[in-house]
Amino acid sequence: MQRRYNTQQICFEQEFSLDGLDEALQQQAFEVMQEERQSGRIGYYDLPRNSAQMVYDAASRLHKLESKFSKSIQTIVVIGIGGSSLGIKAIDTLLHPALREQKEIVYLENSDPVELSYALERIHKGRSLFFLISKSGGTIETISIFKMMLTHFNIHLDGADKERFFIITDEGSILSQFAKQYGLNEFNIPENVGGRFSVLSAVGVLPLLAAGFNVPKILDGASSMIERFFAGQEMHVLQKAAFMTTHKEHYPINVLFGYSNLFEQLGKWFVQLWAESLGKVDAQGNRVGLTPIGLTGAVDQHSFLQLIIEGPRNKTVTFMKIDNFENGLMIPDISLKFLEKTNFANSLPFNTLINAQCDATKESLLQCDVPVDTITLARIDEETVGAILAYFELLTSAAGAMMHINTYDQPGVELGKVILQKRFAK
Amino acid sequence: MQRRYNTQQICFEQEFSLDGLDEALQQQAFEVMQEERQSGRIGYYDLPRNSAQMVYDAASRLHKLESKFSKSIQTIVVIGIGGSSLGIKAIDTLLHPALREQKEIVYLENSDPVELSYALERIHKGRSLFFLISKSGGTIETISIFKMMLTHFNIHLDGADKERFFIITDEGSILSQFAKQYGLNEFNIPENVGGRFSVLSAVGVLPLLAAGFNVPKILDGASSMIERFFAGQEMHVLQKAAFMTTHKEHYPINVLFGYSNLFEQLGKWFVQLWAESLGKVDAQGNRVGLTPIGLTGAVDQHSFLQLIIEGPRNKTVTFMKIDNFENGLMIPDISLKFLEKTNFANSLPFNTLINAQCDATKESLLQCDVPVDTITLARIDEETVGAILAYFELLTSAAGAMMHINTYDQPGVELGKVILQKRFAK
Repeated sequence: MQRRYNTQQICFEQEFSLDGLDEALQQQAFEVMQEERQSGRIGYYDLPRNSAQMVYDAASRLHKLESKFSKSIQTIVVIGIGGSSLGIKAIDTLLHPALREQKEIVYLENSDPVELSYALERIHKGRSLFFLISKSGGTIETISIFKMMLTHFNIHLDGADKERFFIITDEGSILSQFAKQYGLNEFNIPENVGGRFSVLSAVGVLPLLAAGFNVPKILDGASSMIERFFAGQEMHVLQKAAFMTTHKEHYPINVLFGYSNLFEQLGKWFVQLWAESLGKVDAQGNRVGLTPIGLTGAVDQHSFLQLIIEGPRNKTVTFMKIDNFENGLMIPDISLKFLEKTNFANSLPFNTLINAQCDATKESLLQCDVPVDTITLARIDEETVGAILAYFELLTSAAGAMMHINTYDQPGVELGKVILQKRFAK
Repeated sequence: MQRRYNTQQICFEQEFSLDGLDEALQQQAFEVMQEERQSGRIGYYDLPRNSAQMVYDAASRLHKLESKFSKSIQTIVVIGIGGSSLGIKAIDTLLHPALREQKEIVYLENSDPVELSYALERIHKGRSLFFLISKSGGTIETISIFKMMLTHFNIHLDGADKERFFIITDEGSILSQFAKQYGLNEFNIPENVGGRFSVLSAVGVLPLLAAGFNVPKILDGASSMIERFFAGQEMHVLQKAAFMTTHKEHYPINVLFGYSNLFEQLGKWFVQLWAESLGKVDAQGNRVGLTPIGLTGAVDQHSFLQLIIEGPRNKTVTFMKIDNFENGLMIPDISLKFLEKTNFANSLPFNTLINAQCDATKESLLQCDVPVDTITLARIDEETVGAILAYFELLTSAAGAMMHINTYDQPGVELGKVILQKRFAK
């Protein structure tokens, strides 16, 4: 009962049952998403297109800076957390190995003093550009780290260091007002684009461009996926969202099992997207949501897999793999005495071994009736990365529409912020 | 209703209700664990003590090697996956920042060709010691990587390179027979110690010693925790296991929310321990298990927290924090125009901010009736790290005993291995 959908360079295979799924629900969700887009309420659908002009503008400004600093820029510093870092990390991690000429991106995210101290050692002011990213403008980790850096690197925003800083925030936010006060480079996140859907806005575009990634191709890949979806050519997205939301009581946990370390940060980006978008109180006052888990294959075959196979049948599993790693590392044809039983892998590229491990694990789950689907990227390039990000965003919007919730807010996290501030109120 | 237990340098606080927990069940589990230990069926309880002699032996052999190689060893290479790497990574990550003089440990775990290629760039044969770790001896990733390295580094096991290799495996395994054939350095894992409980056997002891960690102190910390538990002084472990297993239908997901990037690898080690030990078919044929999730604070306040607060009430949360990071990085007392609302954090050490964020998040969960407990390490040192590893192992054994399962096997993962081999059978 496998269904297979090929899109550009990505193959989607579904091996869960469509029995009992409401087609009207899928059509309704599709219409909700059309309305979100057409009304302009939700902006991420049009980001790839709208960001293209910004790329042109930003690229020329960055180019001038490069010339001015005599090509001495070696490090891109991203100061941001959550939606202001996860997407950049996902793209950076996926694409970095393919294109070795990029600059290094250093992330200052957490309020952990040890982690920050590590990162500071890798930054030299004179060889860096800094991207300060906060949608609301007042994120306590981000602004506190910014203040620490002003002191640590003896930064003069009203003088020589001004040009090294880029502020990315909502128009009119307190951080935007601060940027204007000092005449700093500023780029805005559209108001109708939420933080976790913002990677293809200035949030991701600016630092990735500065680091040397081919951002227009990433935007192209995302744009194609979104346009194909709205043209009715990617209806498997709705089928999958329908399966996951219809059976959410039965399968409250969704595992994303990526067979490459390259997928680790994409997994974390997906976890934010899925958890924060769908974990909500619905219109009837019910707590709803689906719990995402990111795993890495083949490593987590030796960790989490036992629980999926023999534990409670409460998980769906989405496998992700890379058909062609474009890396020829091989297992040589060596037979070691007493270890002959491992010879079946001799002469295989590791590329073949890891994908065979993915297939074998999938097969073992199918034999145990675990609902499974598989996403295979032909290879890792800018277009497939853009497309896969857009795919997960569309899937999330579809699931949110089917659950009748507000997919785009996060009211639950405010309480902790209030408690934190009160603690230090004088 | 907070209960607080202080052990050496660790404070355990429980803020979940003990109502409805069966004390006889806890006593029974305690007796099961006593029997496991006294009968010698389960060996990890006595590992810290039994490993002490090995430390003495191994240290002197490593010392001789250091002299022979004129102190040229800079890199410790660990070739292993799952239980053969996760525990080493957890300890290495936690303790590394405190003690900067250690050698770097490079891990070759996954069958991912890109990840392997990255790792290979960091290894120079002449400056490395190699630890090949596989309990069963036939782990396909590990042996395949070993073969690749024989070719890649032009290694001669019957000659000059012999001394650089350490084999860690079960006595009599196929890898042990191979080691004897070539006269390689060999250390064994006790047969009664499972892979995921093996970090304090030769698996962890050898590479960590070689890297320069104070392993005897780690063993001391673990030993104290275990002896105190069996002396009846850590009964909170049984209370927590009882809460988690009694309410497993209601709270099938257990979150470990560590407020420091230092805890990230500990989280992965715990995920293996909890998932693989408890995800089982029980004596009555029921699928049981608890799903672990590792989160990092404060980062995941911007990702997963919304789901915990507003989503289905199906999660327990264990916070972990470090009272004293021994790092003085501060937020300076700078007031930036328009950003004054962030001034409440001015003049705070990041150490204080991140712990206040942990406390505030905990408070917000308590207000929403999420079952919570907190583990506070006074600081990160060898003893606390040893103790916390032992704590999680004891908790897992207690939970397994209460669920009437075999905590120590992993039959579910065999099917995938068989399918993989069949695929390449000629």
